[in-house]
Amino acid sequence: MLPIVKGLIEGDRRSLARAISIVDNQEPESRQIIREIFGRTGKARTVGFTGPGGAGKSSLVGRLIPECQALGHRVAVLAVDPTSPITGGAILGDRVRMLANLEDERVFMRSMASRGAVGGVSKSLRNAIRVLDAAGYDLILVESVGAGQLEIEITKVVDLTVVLFTPNTGDNVQAVKAGLTEVGDVYVVNKADIDGAGPLYNIIKEMIGETERKPAVLKVSAKTGRGVRELAHSIEKLLKERSINYKEREKRMLEDELKDMVTDIVEQKVASMLATDKRYAAIIEKLARKETDPYVAAEEVAAGLFR
Amino acid sequence: MLPIVKGLIEGDRRSLARAISIVDNQEPESRQIIREIFGRTGKARTVGFTGPGGAGKSSLVGRLIPECQALGHRVAVLAVDPTSPITGGAILGDRVRMLANLEDERVFMRSMASRGAVGGVSKSLRNAIRVLDAAGYDLILVESVGAGQLEIEITKVVDLTVVLFTPNTGDNVQAVKAGLTEVGDVYVVNKADIDGAGPLYNIIKEMIGETERKPAVLKVSAKTGRGVRELAHSIEKLLKERSINYKEREKRMLEDELKDMVTDIVEQKVASMLATDKRYAAIIEKLARKETDPYVAAEEVAAGLFR
Repeated sequence: MLPIVKGLIEGDRRSLARAISIVDNQEPESRQIIREIFGRTGKARTVGFTGPGGAGKSSLVGRLIPECQALGHRVAVLAVDPTSPITGGAILGDRVRMLANLEDERVFMRSMASRGAVGGVSKSLRNAIRVLDAAGYDLILVESVGAGQLEIEITKVVDLTVVLFTPNTGDNVQAVKAGLTEVGDVYVVNKADIDGAGPLYNIIKEMIGETERKPAVLKVSAKTGRGVRELAHSIEKLLKERSINYKEREKRMLEDELKDMVTDIVEQKVASMLATDKRYAAIIEKLARKETDPYVAAEEVAAGLFR
Repeated sequence: MLPIVKGLIEGDRRSLARAISIVDNQEPESRQIIREIFGRTGKARTVGFTGPGGAGKSSLVGRLIPECQALGHRVAVLAVDPTSPITGGAILGDRVRMLANLEDERVFMRSMASRGAVGGVSKSLRNAIRVLDAAGYDLILVESVGAGQLEIEITKVVDLTVVLFTPNTGDNVQAVKAGLTEVGDVYVVNKADIDGAGPLYNIIKEMIGETERKPAVLKVSAKTGRGVRELAHSIEKLLKERSINYKEREKRMLEDELKDMVTDIVEQKVASMLATDKRYAAIIEKLARKETDPYVAAEEVAAGLFR
C-alpha cells in the first residue's frame, strides 16, 4: 500500500489533501491511489450545490456543515470551479478563511482546480470523492462555482443536486442559465430576508412546475440561518430514499464512468493520430481538395484505429 | 449520378427538399448524396440566427431575405430546432405560412428535425448546407430555435452568428442563457420600437464589452423593417472580410467535422460493445463488485478496440 493511501485511511489530513491534489491534477500516481482505495469506496453520499455566482453557495454550505454533523455525518466539502482557472486561487482563499472561522477539525474542505474539458472535471471529481470516501467522510458537499455545461456535468456525478438562487439584482438574468431549472432535486431561494425573495420564489415555482419531478422549493437565509436546518433534513430524507436503490445507481454511474474513460482514451488516440500521423494529415488535405468526402475520410481514419 | 442529385443541381425543388430530408434523417442514401455533391460545395456562406424564443428570429429572417436578395444573393433558410422534437411540426407550419406570404420562388425554406445528440445536429446541418450549396444557394440563413449547448454547437457550423434579443418581459431572464453573449459576431435588439429596447441595448453593450472581439450591436424592428437593411449590409461586410481566409477556415471546419465523425464512429462502437459483448458486461460487473478499478477496466475495454 502506498504511504499516502495508508495515511489518508488513518486520518492524516496532509496525506488526504495531497491525494486529492494528485487525482485532481490527474498525475500518474492517481491510477495507483484509485486502485488501492477503490474497494473501500461506496459508503459516502454526495450533494452538489449549484446556481449563479453570488447566490451565496459558500455561505449556505458553511451553514449546512454543523447541521449535517448534528445528523451524525462526517462532512467534507469540495469546491469545483471548472470554468475559470484564474479564480481558483481566490476561491481557495475563501475556503481557507471559512475553514479558519469554523475552527473545526472534523470538516475537510478543498478547492479543486479541475481545468479543461468536461470529461476532465468528471474524472477529477469522481476520484476526489473516492479519496474522501476512503478517508471516512460519509457526506460530501460539492460546491460548483460558475455555470454552464460543465456544471451540468457535475450534477451527474453527485447523488443529489441543490440549486440555489438569490433575489439579487441581475441574478434573474442568470436564473435560467445553463438549464439549471432541469437538474435540481431541491431548489433553494437564498437571502429570503431581502425584498424580491417572494417574487423569485414564485418564478422558480413556476419554472419547476413544468418539470415532471416537481422537486421541493425552499427559502433560506444563509446569513441568519433561517431554513438551513429544514434544508439539511430535506437532503437527509432524499438521500435515504435514494439509498434504497444505491447499488443499482452506483453500477449505472460506474458504467457511465467507464464509457467516459474509454471515450476519453479513444478521443486522445484520435486527436494524437490526427495531429502527428502523416497519413491523417494527408486525408485532411485530400478532404480540403475535395478528392474524398467526410464519410469516406472518417471511415478511413476509424478503420486505422480498430482491430 | 443519383437522379435526386441531378435534380437538385438542375434546380428541381422537390429533389432538393427530399435530399435535405435524407441528410437530416441521416438515411443510408445521404452518404452517396454527399459524396456526389461534395466537389460542388464551398461557395455558399452561412449565417446563424440565435437568441431566446420569442425574440422574433423568424420575422427578422423573413425581412432579411429581400434585402440579401437585393445584394445579389440566392437565399435559402434552414430552421433548426434541436431541443424540442415536439414543436418541429409547428415550426414547419410557420415556415410554410411564411413561404406562402412571400410567394417567392427564389427563396428556399426548410425546417430541420435534427433530433438527438449534439453531434447529430452538426452532421445534419453541415450536410443540409452542402445540399443547398450544391443547388446554387450562395447565402444560407440558419435559424436556430431554442437555446442551450446544441445552439452553441450550431454556431460552430456557420460562418457568422447573429444573436437576437428582444425587450419583452421575461426575456432578460433568458438573455444570457447558454452563453449566447460569447458566440455572436453581430448582436441585434429587435422590437426597437417598444419600451425597454434602450435599456436592453445598454445591458447587451455592457455584456459584450467584456469580450475581446467587441462585435457590433444593432437595433432593428422586424415589424416596421427599421434597421434591417443596415443589418444586411453589416452581414455582407463581415462575410466579405472572412472570405479572405475562407479556404483556411474551410479546412479547419473540415478537420473539426472529421474529428466529430471519427469520434462518432468510435463512440457508437464503444456503446455497442458495452451493450452487447458479454466480455464488457462482465467488466462492468467486476467493476461494480470492485474486483477491478475504473482505470484498468477502461484500458481493458480500449485495448479490445485498438489495433
